[in-house]
Amino acid sequence: MAERLPTGAVIGILGGGQLGRMLAMAAARLGLRAHIYDPDPAAPARDVATAATCAGWADGAALARFAAAVDVVTYEFENIPLEVIDTLAPLRPVHPGRRALATAQERVAEKSFLNAAGLVTAPWAAVGSAADLAEALGRIGTPAILKTARMGYDGKGQIRITDPAEAPGALAAIGGGPAILEGMVAFSAEVSVIAARSASGEVAAYDPGENLHEGGILRRTTVPAPSLPARHRSDAVLIAARILGALDYVGVLGVELFVTPGGLLVNEIAPRVHNSGHWTQNGCAVDQFEQHIRAIAGWPLGDGSRHSDVVMENLIGADMARVPDLAATPGVALHLYGKAEVRAGRKMGHANRIRPRA
Amino acid sequence: MAERLPTGAVIGILGGGQLGRMLAMAAARLGLRAHIYDPDPAAPARDVATAATCAGWADGAALARFAAAVDVVTYEFENIPLEVIDTLAPLRPVHPGRRALATAQERVAEKSFLNAAGLVTAPWAAVGSAADLAEALGRIGTPAILKTARMGYDGKGQIRITDPAEAPGALAAIGGGPAILEGMVAFSAEVSVIAARSASGEVAAYDPGENLHEGGILRRTTVPAPSLPARHRSDAVLIAARILGALDYVGVLGVELFVTPGGLLVNEIAPRVHNSGHWTQNGCAVDQFEQHIRAIAGWPLGDGSRHSDVVMENLIGADMARVPDLAATPGVALHLYGKAEVRAGRKMGHANRIRPRA
Repeated sequence: MAERLPTGAVIGILGGGQLGRMLAMAAARLGLRAHIYDPDPAAPARDVATAATCAGWADGAALARFAAAVDVVTYEFENIPLEVIDTLAPLRPVHPGRRALATAQERVAEKSFLNAAGLVTAPWAAVGSAADLAEALGRIGTPAILKTARMGYDGKGQIRITDPAEAPGALAAIGGGPAILEGMVAFSAEVSVIAARSASGEVAAYDPGENLHEGGILRRTTVPAPSLPARHRSDAVLIAARILGALDYVGVLGVELFVTPGGLLVNEIAPRVHNSGHWTQNGCAVDQFEQHIRAIAGWPLGDGSRHSDVVMENLIGADMARVPDLAATPGVALHLYGKAEVRAGRKMGHANRIRPRA
Repeated sequence: MAERLPTGAVIGILGGGQLGRMLAMAAARLGLRAHIYDPDPAAPARDVATAATCAGWADGAALARFAAAVDVVTYEFENIPLEVIDTLAPLRPVHPGRRALATAQERVAEKSFLNAAGLVTAPWAAVGSAADLAEALGRIGTPAILKTARMGYDGKGQIRITDPAEAPGALAAIGGGPAILEGMVAFSAEVSVIAARSASGEVAAYDPGENLHEGGILRRTTVPAPSLPARHRSDAVLIAARILGALDYVGVLGVELFVTPGGLLVNEIAPRVHNSGHWTQNGCAVDQFEQHIRAIAGWPLGDGSRHSDVVMENLIGADMARVPDLAATPGVALHLYGKAEVRAGRKMGHANRIRPRA
């Protein structure tokens, strides 16, 4: 098992957005320091980090200096070039590891991994060409969703196909491939499980939350999940545990699941702290950010049991105008990201509304 | 009323210890930045602050540059020279204001203020000389406590007198004066109230906590306070509110009270966030650090109602050896200060043990 990092040790975080920012603050609560690596000099995590490197992902010298300055490396988003991990991994431990990252950043690999682990997904097919797409539509039927195989997030890079005649236009719209076609699932709700695995193989999961998306962006997470039948709560946790074990994972993982009459389907996994886990900041003694830091720093996992019910709401773009009202609302905890520029669709903060456990 | 400071505004914090550190993190949660002023280049708050000035308290040029770089000034400890406030106040708003600071940093002024506000304290007398002390002992009796009038904290600078014959030695031991003699109070418990007042005069108080000291240092705070009769809980809050109003205070204030058969006596006030309020980090939606930032930044006060029962325990010196055990204990939230050097009597962190509300 990894040594427990002591006071003053440095967590290197690739990516300085809001997730890196909240990871840095969690590290500080454990007496650890954060060093942010981000090409953006205005990355919001820099405000609360002890050190920062502002350099590009292809800057090998900067990456090497970064590695030399930190004790362990992690990341806040899954679209980091694998070459970055390949540069850093010989120099410092990187958690979660390369396999988790490679699996999560390519949808065909992700679905293949999940099915091989015995988990149910929507029907899917890899699409490299118009001929592949026609064949896949014949097998999976419509409606279906065509997605770029890589680099999609917040609903970008995907398009719905309701009729096979739309196929050529759809493939062109997402850039021509490589892509994946996924059958539409008749689900009653989307839930997610945030789970963690330590270097010694210990696993802990938070209560599943129910997610509401608008325009492809997470709008709200409610815990406990109102639409998740009680019999499926443990299924959700077991699915997360199976994924963590199969990937020999170290850190926090987000798993998005569809609730269907026949049971839970896995939608996708995120090898990092997850927007749908922000409720843990005001619902648990140890939140997902600290849990991630504990896991990658060789600490024991913390207590993620829920002391309160929480509704987490994202503040997106113009929602920032609601901050004065939210700040004066009983039971609301605000978490703002310090981003200078408000843009439509940009995640600016979130609000956790807490209530006593029902 | 003060304008509400917007995203990216800078909170200037005099003092970079653990209180400044936790204030800086609370500012970040509201999208604000922290600039720490501390003569110590290793001040723990620097790890999570956006900017820092390392300079002495008498460095007028550094203070002026600091003022120019921030939007509002506050402080994490009451032993800041008043001259620092006098330098800064013409340049930027300083909260809490000069009067609160001057009152809290000199025990004779503090007791006079409290009595003038109609609040009960232990019997006391100002001591400038051996003759004063003899006269005071004759009036107040023994046992009594002789304290330096200024700059005492964590039990330093005070000595107990059980017999008038000890008076000359006691006065010499604390440096000869100016001093204050306080009569011993037969109290059943010490409790404290953490309360806040906004620039618009809004007041909010947290539930009183019960404090246990060892060797003059706070060891533990328990909320709700087991020894505080229910009829005295609102008294405690009303006392805090009266002090806040009388000082035209802006920010968070700590009030230490003695519980006696005849009611509550005020022991002392601290014009800042207070160690006995650390439980709020895991007991409330908005903790004392954020409440202080809200007050001084012109925001509405937040919801300080208690969702959980909490026992806060300080980790002092060698207590750090208990961190691995505490990290693995259910219901425990750790808050470590990142101090490199463990010294006897040094506050290194604290642990909040949370339980469902009884």
